[in-house]
Amino acid sequence: MIYLDNSATTKPYPEVIESFVKVSTDYFGNPSSLHGIGTQAEKLLSTARKQIADLLKVKSAEVFFTSGGTEGNNLAIKGAALANQNRGKHIITTSIEHPSVMEAFQVLSEQGFAVTYLPVDATGRVSVVDLEKALREDTILVSIMHVNNEVGSIQPIAEIGELLKQYPQILFHVDHVQGIGKVDLSLIDAGIDLCTISGHKLHGLKGTGVLYIRQGVRIAPLFSGGNQEGQFRSGTENVAGIVALAKAMRISLNNCVLYAHKLKEIRTVFYHGLQEIDGVQVNSPVDGAPHIINFSVPGLKSEVLLHELETEGVYVSTTSACSSKKRTASKTVLEMYRNQERAESVIRISTSFHNEIEEAKQAIDAIGRAVAKLEKVMR
Amino acid sequence: MIYLDNSATTKPYPEVIESFVKVSTDYFGNPSSLHGIGTQAEKLLSTARKQIADLLKVKSAEVFFTSGGTEGNNLAIKGAALANQNRGKHIITTSIEHPSVMEAFQVLSEQGFAVTYLPVDATGRVSVVDLEKALREDTILVSIMHVNNEVGSIQPIAEIGELLKQYPQILFHVDHVQGIGKVDLSLIDAGIDLCTISGHKLHGLKGTGVLYIRQGVRIAPLFSGGNQEGQFRSGTENVAGIVALAKAMRISLNNCVLYAHKLKEIRTVFYHGLQEIDGVQVNSPVDGAPHIINFSVPGLKSEVLLHELETEGVYVSTTSACSSKKRTASKTVLEMYRNQERAESVIRISTSFHNEIEEAKQAIDAIGRAVAKLEKVMR
Repeated sequence: MIYLDNSATTKPYPEVIESFVKVSTDYFGNPSSLHGIGTQAEKLLSTARKQIADLLKVKSAEVFFTSGGTEGNNLAIKGAALANQNRGKHIITTSIEHPSVMEAFQVLSEQGFAVTYLPVDATGRVSVVDLEKALREDTILVSIMHVNNEVGSIQPIAEIGELLKQYPQILFHVDHVQGIGKVDLSLIDAGIDLCTISGHKLHGLKGTGVLYIRQGVRIAPLFSGGNQEGQFRSGTENVAGIVALAKAMRISLNNCVLYAHKLKEIRTVFYHGLQEIDGVQVNSPVDGAPHIINFSVPGLKSEVLLHELETEGVYVSTTSACSSKKRTASKTVLEMYRNQERAESVIRISTSFHNEIEEAKQAIDAIGRAVAKLEKVMR
Repeated sequence: MIYLDNSATTKPYPEVIESFVKVSTDYFGNPSSLHGIGTQAEKLLSTARKQIADLLKVKSAEVFFTSGGTEGNNLAIKGAALANQNRGKHIITTSIEHPSVMEAFQVLSEQGFAVTYLPVDATGRVSVVDLEKALREDTILVSIMHVNNEVGSIQPIAEIGELLKQYPQILFHVDHVQGIGKVDLSLIDAGIDLCTISGHKLHGLKGTGVLYIRQGVRIAPLFSGGNQEGQFRSGTENVAGIVALAKAMRISLNNCVLYAHKLKEIRTVFYHGLQEIDGVQVNSPVDGAPHIINFSVPGLKSEVLLHELETEGVYVSTTSACSSKKRTASKTVLEMYRNQERAESVIRISTSFHNEIEEAKQAIDAIGRAVAKLEKVMR
């Protein structure tokens, strides 16, 4: 099996599962309980928060635990917009965000917010000049993903952050779900106010995530209740999942250094290999993130090719997992190339540090065979 | 160690943790992925949904997975109110709900909804007559917990449901977090539209829960995005946690039958034992749920007694875990007895099927010693 769908989800590290089991078994207390079993759980929670804060180079008090990327994006975007709407109701994002960002903006738009969707160029990047032009007196929020989940284009977050530092009334949210552990980003240097991270994309467990909220930033919570997580996220903390997340993040960020070269090399194998296959168009930009390579075979439906590759033991995806069941065209590829046929025949390869160069070579061979076979059938 | 804080959280069953590990390790795919690794995860998800539906005697399509009780209550209450506000803006709850219900109503009240809080009598129960009187033309939602989390009083959910069947425009939400596996409730017979269940209160894992949404009921989601969970709850499903939840629910509901007698007997030991200790006032009604016994020692601060009991290896709580860090008086006891001193000296004992009668006897002895010791110090 060659698993190349790591942007949909990753296999949890064994150490991560071990941590989860240990905490669930031996430290099952409710961190809000006042007795020792509760305070033990509370200590583990604080330690995990500190570890994650250190990895992100932020303060412990700025790390908030969520159930994952979708909750993080919704909490950041709806929370920031609703808490700050007295200062303005204009909000900005890009036309290639993940559904959890797109749909959150859609809901806010229905609630009377004015939304600007920034376009992207053929490399899948927004322009800082476009963003600057879009800014208004009543702009209160800019939300831009770091690494695009479909094609791996890297947005100029640091430059956008520099620009937005001149507008302290505007909150800057970054969906970092696909970026963390793959492409460096300093939350502090980029002046980010809100940043979403998901556990299961970095070999942690599903149902875990972090929202970074810069100190002093106010957002409206989605969950009201016991006022856990500094009132921003009520509900009993998933202590075992959180400890497991801290471990997953530490290992992933470490692997990011150790295996950076291998990941790039694998990407090169894919990039060049794909270009040599007749009928294949590579959609990802040359300078994209090291773990995502997106291509089209115009005329071939994505899903047909996906299943053909599966018969060869190669597991890829079409669009994002959160969009794949809708069987629509790739939004990102459509925005980049304005070509419906190209957007409907998209395959995404997403790798992890645990893939090997040999696997990439085998996958390229399999793709070549599959495309040739299917094109023969089609004609 | 005698753990008597099972209403704060329970120790996960070993089988539950085993299921979680198995799924996380061998079936880590994203259920939205179109390939076989995804569909394997999707099958596990469907099976777990069916198992839980069968246990609740509802349809699979009515079972929605959440991150826990707080999310479930917020999603049900805010979701129902916001989606149906065109039909009216009057909503009803009780004065003794869990913070996640209370605060959700508070937020809606700030958004222009009119809220009626039903009082409770000295047995901690609302009156169906009071509810009927409170109903208005523009009432769209009634939210009443089944078993109170602080004193264990059981609300007349079946009778309330009967009444509300005459008002099909009113949605009926029940917070069943403390009730499930302890006090029988037929969601169908009681005409319940929305019902919240939490995993970690029934020996499942933290970060898991179910919201039952009766077919045909519309609510506004809190999370927008990939439209998982029938569009009511976007976000990659925590498949391993969900499979573990199905197992926990099955075992718990089974134990509910097997150990019903023991649990009642333990309650009797506590109930009578507490009444014999000088200075102790039992707050729970005689006919309350079998697993919660609440008492006060007026003049003694809850927290002092809690820590004294801890030195004897007995772990209890003051108010609900979600309120305990605020160190406020018990809202429920205050509403029942209108006595501040009594409400500030509250201790909650909450048991599980895995407590033994011998533990209850030891705990009663420990409480007797602790109260006598502290009263001596105080005087």
